[in-house]
Amino acid sequence: MGRWEPDARGRLLKAALELYAERGFEQTTVAEIAAHAGLTERTFFRHFADKREVLFAGADALKDLLVSTVAGAPADLAAIDAAAAGIEAAGAAIQEGGEFPRVRAAIIAASPELQERELIKLASLATALAEQLRRRGVGEPAASLTAEASIAVFRIAFDQWVNGPAQQDLPGLIRESLDALKAVTAGR
Amino acid sequence: MGRWEPDARGRLLKAALELYAERGFEQTTVAEIAAHAGLTERTFFRHFADKREVLFAGADALKDLLVSTVAGAPADLAAIDAAAAGIEAAGAAIQEGGEFPRVRAAIIAASPELQERELIKLASLATALAEQLRRRGVGEPAASLTAEASIAVFRIAFDQWVNGPAQQDLPGLIRESLDALKAVTAGR
Repeated sequence: MGRWEPDARGRLLKAALELYAERGFEQTTVAEIAAHAGLTERTFFRHFADKREVLFAGADALKDLLVSTVAGAPADLAAIDAAAAGIEAAGAAIQEGGEFPRVRAAIIAASPELQERELIKLASLATALAEQLRRRGVGEPAASLTAEASIAVFRIAFDQWVNGPAQQDLPGLIRESLDALKAVTAGR
Repeated sequence: MGRWEPDARGRLLKAALELYAERGFEQTTVAEIAAHAGLTERTFFRHFADKREVLFAGADALKDLLVSTVAGAPADLAAIDAAAAGIEAAGAAIQEGGEFPRVRAAIIAASPELQERELIKLASLATALAEQLRRRGVGEPAASLTAEASIAVFRIAFDQWVNGPAQQDLPGLIRESLDALKAVTAGR
């Protein structure tokens, strides 16, 4: 390990986002990110496996938060409401990320490769949620349907939040999106 | 263009599926598929852009069927029921494919690259369905939520059909899967 660099990770993240937004993800190299942050490539690779991981490093923490919130929801809560508690908690955590989630979303929207990666991450979020619902005693296909529908609710609310005015509340949009799903499945 | 080969496309498809199932998708080359079918690589490329397209060539026809069924559904049908008509029609068409969809599903399940491709195709199916629902006058986020939830219903029913006994009825499983979604979103 090299010498300690104060907040190297934060500086690399900021540098990467700036370059991805400016030049595009595909056109940016790790060497450029490191130079832009005033650090070495070696330091970059101590913090991130590759340049894509800068954007997806938070996905595991988000998955853990979602799953643990569902695990901790009252046992008598219906599957859809336990799942809702999980996606609202994930939404609240994203919202605390300030500008990062919006900048990240714009970078991803500009790159088919990153959009594919995001789809895969969302699919794995749905798989983890379905697994946790089964642990609560929810059967199949109810667990998978609840999980897939909840991730769709989450994604659609997130898109509204990213593309709408800055003062919107993401957990509130998630609740509204879930209510809209309940209305459409009831045939309204 | 070379000389006419009787049912070259069908022979190439059959040869490709056999080799993918036997050796794996990644380990099979176009040259081997052509040789196995008793045809040339040139003939292969007159029918398919690459070896992946053998498995995804039917996706556009399925999307067209889904979209046109929704377009033709009675105007007074609720969005979720118009979408249901579309995914049931797609399910019926898949079921008419005999063994192909099951063999294809097993090949895809064995390859992360093909699973990613399948996810992308399903996402584009949801996008096309949402677009058609908006043309029917459904607003947002209702159109996107209905589309995403319907594709989840379709996918989960398809997985049951592929992994269950051979005599199951796919459109019937899709209806049951939709009923299960309606039950979970109603908190039952």
